[in-house]
Amino acid sequence: MNEHELLQHIYARAAKSPDNPAVELGPGDDCCVLRFGGERLLITTDQLVEGRHYELSATIDQIARKAVARSISDIAAMGGEPISTLAAACLPPDYLEADELFDKVHKWCEHFGAPLVGGDIVSSDGPNILTITTIGRTSTAGEPILRSGAKPGDALYVTGKLGGSFQSGRHLSFDPRCAESTQLVRTLASDLHAMIDLSDGLGRDGARIAEASAVRLVFEEPALPIHDDVAGWEQAVSDGEDYELLFAVADGAPVPPMCNQTGTLFTRIGRVEPGSGCAITLLDGSVINIAEMGWDHGRTG
Amino acid sequence: MNEHELLQHIYARAAKSPDNPAVELGPGDDCCVLRFGGERLLITTDQLVEGRHYELSATIDQIARKAVARSISDIAAMGGEPISTLAAACLPPDYLEADELFDKVHKWCEHFGAPLVGGDIVSSDGPNILTITTIGRTSTAGEPILRSGAKPGDALYVTGKLGGSFQSGRHLSFDPRCAESTQLVRTLASDLHAMIDLSDGLGRDGARIAEASAVRLVFEEPALPIHDDVAGWEQAVSDGEDYELLFAVADGAPVPPMCNQTGTLFTRIGRVEPGSGCAITLLDGSVINIAEMGWDHGRTG
Repeated sequence: MNEHELLQHIYARAAKSPDNPAVELGPGDDCCVLRFGGERLLITTDQLVEGRHYELSATIDQIARKAVARSISDIAAMGGEPISTLAAACLPPDYLEADELFDKVHKWCEHFGAPLVGGDIVSSDGPNILTITTIGRTSTAGEPILRSGAKPGDALYVTGKLGGSFQSGRHLSFDPRCAESTQLVRTLASDLHAMIDLSDGLGRDGARIAEASAVRLVFEEPALPIHDDVAGWEQAVSDGEDYELLFAVADGAPVPPMCNQTGTLFTRIGRVEPGSGCAITLLDGSVINIAEMGWDHGRTG
Repeated sequence: MNEHELLQHIYARAAKSPDNPAVELGPGDDCCVLRFGGERLLITTDQLVEGRHYELSATIDQIARKAVARSISDIAAMGGEPISTLAAACLPPDYLEADELFDKVHKWCEHFGAPLVGGDIVSSDGPNILTITTIGRTSTAGEPILRSGAKPGDALYVTGKLGGSFQSGRHLSFDPRCAESTQLVRTLASDLHAMIDLSDGLGRDGARIAEASAVRLVFEEPALPIHDDVAGWEQAVSDGEDYELLFAVADGAPVPPMCNQTGTLFTRIGRVEPGSGCAITLLDGSVINIAEMGWDHGRTG
């Protein structure tokens, strides 16, 4: 059973929970959404595991940055703004850099606007594990942007460029797309139908929007913005860890060419169709299913 | 550096954060407190590590229960009521019971009134680690009950009985003191000055109230409610994992003899004095410092 299948089991059970007015959206999106004090609270938790999400050569500063940035990216993917962070670390008994690690986590939490407010430390044999929980709110106090809102006819866009994140080291230095998300939410309002951050690759994550929205996503090979160090479309849709935003907007909606604040490009890369699955149309006109192309972090056998 | 020292470093840094109106209370108590939508949000995160917090003989149901119950206990210790839970699991690649584990976590989250709304799964070599994050609110939408509110002259009380939790297996089956906490908050109102849940032992946790409140805690040996299988006061104040509530109330405040809903006893066990530290007065009149007696989960060398 892989991560996705396991999570499906969890979601199925969560859906059967007795109604709880505080839970607006359970598991299955980038964050869950709670009603609290009349506002919508976004919350996400993610584990960063040594040797799995980063190599042993990564510095403590890079590890801390990546752990925090991934959670912040989940908040951005919901059209949210981060508020605060909790950090739990599981470290070997002889680990000497725990204080430095929390120092760096604290620094990056401040940097990304989500101050560190709590945490936990335990020691254990095994790899270092850093579990980051981030709380946020929707940018306009309105509806969060879910994976499930894409409609046939929508245009698909992506921020930045795709591919090669792990091999290039970009997975250790990416900027979560908060400014981009906030601008999109404010500019597009109800024309911004669905959004996800690309952690497992355009193919696999595109398929998640397709499944949640009960639609088909089709990308165009020539449209894909690809990093210079990426071999081609196949790598660009398969590589994980881009942490760019993939979003669906009403056709004709006035998507700006770039983020005013950061200069990050917004590139139109495809369209939403009736049907199911996630595909790419190549230059030669052939259509390839890419729903299984991407990285499954949690494959467990 | 042990867990306590490390956390002190973290707290010192967090205190230096730029003012953030959303953060009412940072790290250093059972939960941190955020202002959100005009209400107070409590949040806590805790890791449960195989071989450290439970033995390999524990069942999956017991593991799930303990992981969830510890977080719920932190909410109760703030005078709060739980709302929802996130669960992150780090499991070996060949672990076959991941689905059952989440099934049980889901069950206990429902049982304790904090439905599972999100999570994360990764695989890794090393022990199983279950990180639980619980969100709650204050029972009366009022002030949370902190560790820092004890005043000289206050009476000290404890719920239930002390000691022997790990050896007896009670650490796998305890009920977090939610009903007790809610009754105390409602009955005592502003006379309930400080509260903590006993995870590391009466000595060590008592010292945390003493330090946070800048007072001295003195317990009376004959007053301590001790489980039948506990050897005496020394074990009762040293053993961790009781998850009972220790609380300070204004002298003369009408503390009920027991919880109406559960029958859990509220026992007066000492008083708050000016000064510092945490001590016990023995039957023979001698006074013993017990601030260092207890379990440091996170001693890292």
